Amino acid sequence: MATINENFLKLQAGYLFAEIGRRIRAFKAKNSDARLISLGIGDVTQPLAGAVVEAMRDAVGQMSKEETFRGYDNNHIGYEFLREAIRENDFQARGVEVDIDEVFISDGAKCDTANIQEIFGTDNVVAVTDPVYPVYVDTNVIAGRTGPADAKGQYDGIVYMPCTVKNDFVPAIPRKHVDLIYLCFPNNPTGAVVTAEQLKEWVDYARASKAVILFDAAYEAFISQPDIPHSIYEIDGAKEVAIEFRSFSKTAGFTGVRCAFTVVPKQLKAYARDGRAVDVNSLWHRRQCTKFNGVSYIAQVGATAIYTPEGKKQTREIIDIYMGNARLICRSLKKLGYEVYGGVNAPYIWMRTPDGMSSWDFFDRLLTKANVIGTPGSGFGPSGEGYFRLTAFAKPRDVKEALDRLGKM
Amino acid sequence: MATINENFLKLQAGYLFAEIGRRIRAFKAKNSDARLISLGIGDVTQPLAGAVVEAMRDAVGQMSKEETFRGYDNNHIGYEFLREAIRENDFQARGVEVDIDEVFISDGAKCDTANIQEIFGTDNVVAVTDPVYPVYVDTNVIAGRTGPADAKGQYDGIVYMPCTVKNDFVPAIPRKHVDLIYLCFPNNPTGAVVTAEQLKEWVDYARASKAVILFDAAYEAFISQPDIPHSIYEIDGAKEVAIEFRSFSKTAGFTGVRCAFTVVPKQLKAYARDGRAVDVNSLWHRRQCTKFNGVSYIAQVGATAIYTPEGKKQTREIIDIYMGNARLICRSLKKLGYEVYGGVNAPYIWMRTPDGMSSWDFFDRLLTKANVIGTPGSGFGPSGEGYFRLTAFAKPRDVKEALDRLGKM
Repeated sequence: MATINENFLKLQAGYLFAEIGRRIRAFKAKNSDARLISLGIGDVTQPLAGAVVEAMRDAVGQMSKEETFRGYDNNHIGYEFLREAIRENDFQARGVEVDIDEVFISDGAKCDTANIQEIFGTDNVVAVTDPVYPVYVDTNVIAGRTGPADAKGQYDGIVYMPCTVKNDFVPAIPRKHVDLIYLCFPNNPTGAVVTAEQLKEWVDYARASKAVILFDAAYEAFISQPDIPHSIYEIDGAKEVAIEFRSFSKTAGFTGVRCAFTVVPKQLKAYARDGRAVDVNSLWHRRQCTKFNGVSYIAQVGATAIYTPEGKKQTREIIDIYMGNARLICRSLKKLGYEVYGGVNAPYIWMRTPDGMSSWDFFDRLLTKANVIGTPGSGFGPSGEGYFRLTAFAKPRDVKEALDRLGKM
Repeated sequence: MATINENFLKLQAGYLFAEIGRRIRAFKAKNSDARLISLGIGDVTQPLAGAVVEAMRDAVGQMSKEETFRGYDNNHIGYEFLREAIRENDFQARGVEVDIDEVFISDGAKCDTANIQEIFGTDNVVAVTDPVYPVYVDTNVIAGRTGPADAKGQYDGIVYMPCTVKNDFVPAIPRKHVDLIYLCFPNNPTGAVVTAEQLKEWVDYARASKAVILFDAAYEAFISQPDIPHSIYEIDGAKEVAIEFRSFSKTAGFTGVRCAFTVVPKQLKAYARDGRAVDVNSLWHRRQCTKFNGVSYIAQVGATAIYTPEGKKQTREIIDIYMGNARLICRSLKKLGYEVYGGVNAPYIWMRTPDGMSSWDFFDRLLTKANVIGTPGSGFGPSGEGYFRLTAFAKPRDVKEALDRLGKM
């Protein structure tokens, strides 16, 4: 008798955005003429940069000729031309040395942050922030690192680190010992960032306790303040304890193209039960070679074009459009009397719901009264209850109209 | 202290093709002017079909305009236009009804056959053929469904079903009860196929014992004999017990584009420990929504073009080129006195090594004497020892030259 992985039965309801999708479809079925504006799911709306389009067109052309056709990306971890561009532009330019063998190209930071836990033992104590990007938690539930969820939706065995106004949405190091720590800065959903000093505390903790930090930096391109670190490797010693996730999804509008990367330093060790130190880079390499077959050549060529002078300029312009949206959302909401966080170094605005409304009630109200879609803060964890996430990724004219509607609501 | 997943330490040597790559690099380093011809890794060499190229060019163009730009494939399991084309052309045309909600688009059959085990319990007894595509085994090792490997490289807990000349490379149903059965037909590496009658025995076994068949049909497009089933769902009752994996990699030269799909029927059940039947389709849907973010829009548009009249004609021509290679390889090797299998309904030729040579010794001899690369049969399991796999995916002129060199060797 084939049995199921029973951990799936522990998972709470649907994946957050699937649940949102269901509510939207139900609303649309009854209100077919409503023009919905989404400031909900963090999906981009600006077209790809010209340099990327041109490069991808050229790549498609190469695939049409025998002499230039490309099959498998045989090393499974990405073409050297892309990994070299990343090494130079994303790291060396900020004073960080990474080797191209430490850079693993993938089809998405979601996949990588989901899959990374596979190379670690099921006995590790996992720490996540609350609120948190649900993928970190759900994948650990599926892997069996947790017990069932409690009434608040929190899983037995996971250490939740509340991020609230009190701590500026930057978690404190937990009292209980933890082994795998998921940190995301600039943060999804709160839009908060960490200073180098704050990040150093985490690196020091991880070094002292042989923990591993899983650092999601998918939104680093949105940092506007000059003193905020873009990479955890800007912190001394971080290469010994941290894996960093990056993505072209938001940086360059690649949500529909699919390309991202993960850095696993060669110095990074985790431990066998007998205490022996094992190279994490080799484990991840083995995992990717066994379960993954590389990223589309066309997408990799497109991603490389982001690093050309034209590509840099054009993607910067796109990011500026989104950050213009973010500023407008923050300003308008404050004017309307809302309490607002984020939106300065991140494309996410984290607002308090009015009058102590629940996050899902506010979602329904926004959907039905203003036909505007956001994301309920409670979907990211109990500390997100009473908050609501808006993204800056909509088209500017839609953002303006959404804010007008909110004003009238 | 962060611990590793110790199951990784059980894995034997590198992934087969990584080991082959290492030997080739070592040879090249000493023989820089040798012109190697690869009949090794199953990678395609013919350029993409014109209809696919045109469609992908158009898709790239759409990504450059705000009105037609596409972000996330929000349902995570693929655009309906592609799933509908699959439903109609791959299944309905062969008398098989599948619902588009049973079709899950992914970035590769390797990923899907690797990931599928996650939705099943670790207590399932896994059966694989011997020889076998290493991914099925390695991913179950990583998941902890096995003990260590023995001297032959076989893992404790896995049921190996020998496929040899004696049984025409079609496995017999094992005496020991098994729960998850990996079958691949047309077979990689042996090139063997199953008749509808033989496949029915497996379906009947699975129905009787509540087992699940994981049916890898990545090579179905290479079937030339009219009575061989292309889909396991051509067998009555198979939708109750089988998951089927398909790929555009070999069918349409998509190894560098990345698009595949998996069918998980809604009738298919697996069981919780308390005996309750659980929908496998929902589990896989949850797995994909949680850990995957969809396939590149450009690749999905390209895949859809395969199903247009032009696309069908052009991909058929490409397959014919490869099958011409296969026929030539079989004929030439037989003339040289080799014992040869496969190559009729599959792009793989499974030859016996001469004079009882070991598979790796023959690999080294072919590499050094003829500068031809193949794949050692023993890399696929102990029953592959003394065999050698050649693929038909090289360019026709390279195949001819490789065979000339073999003749002279």
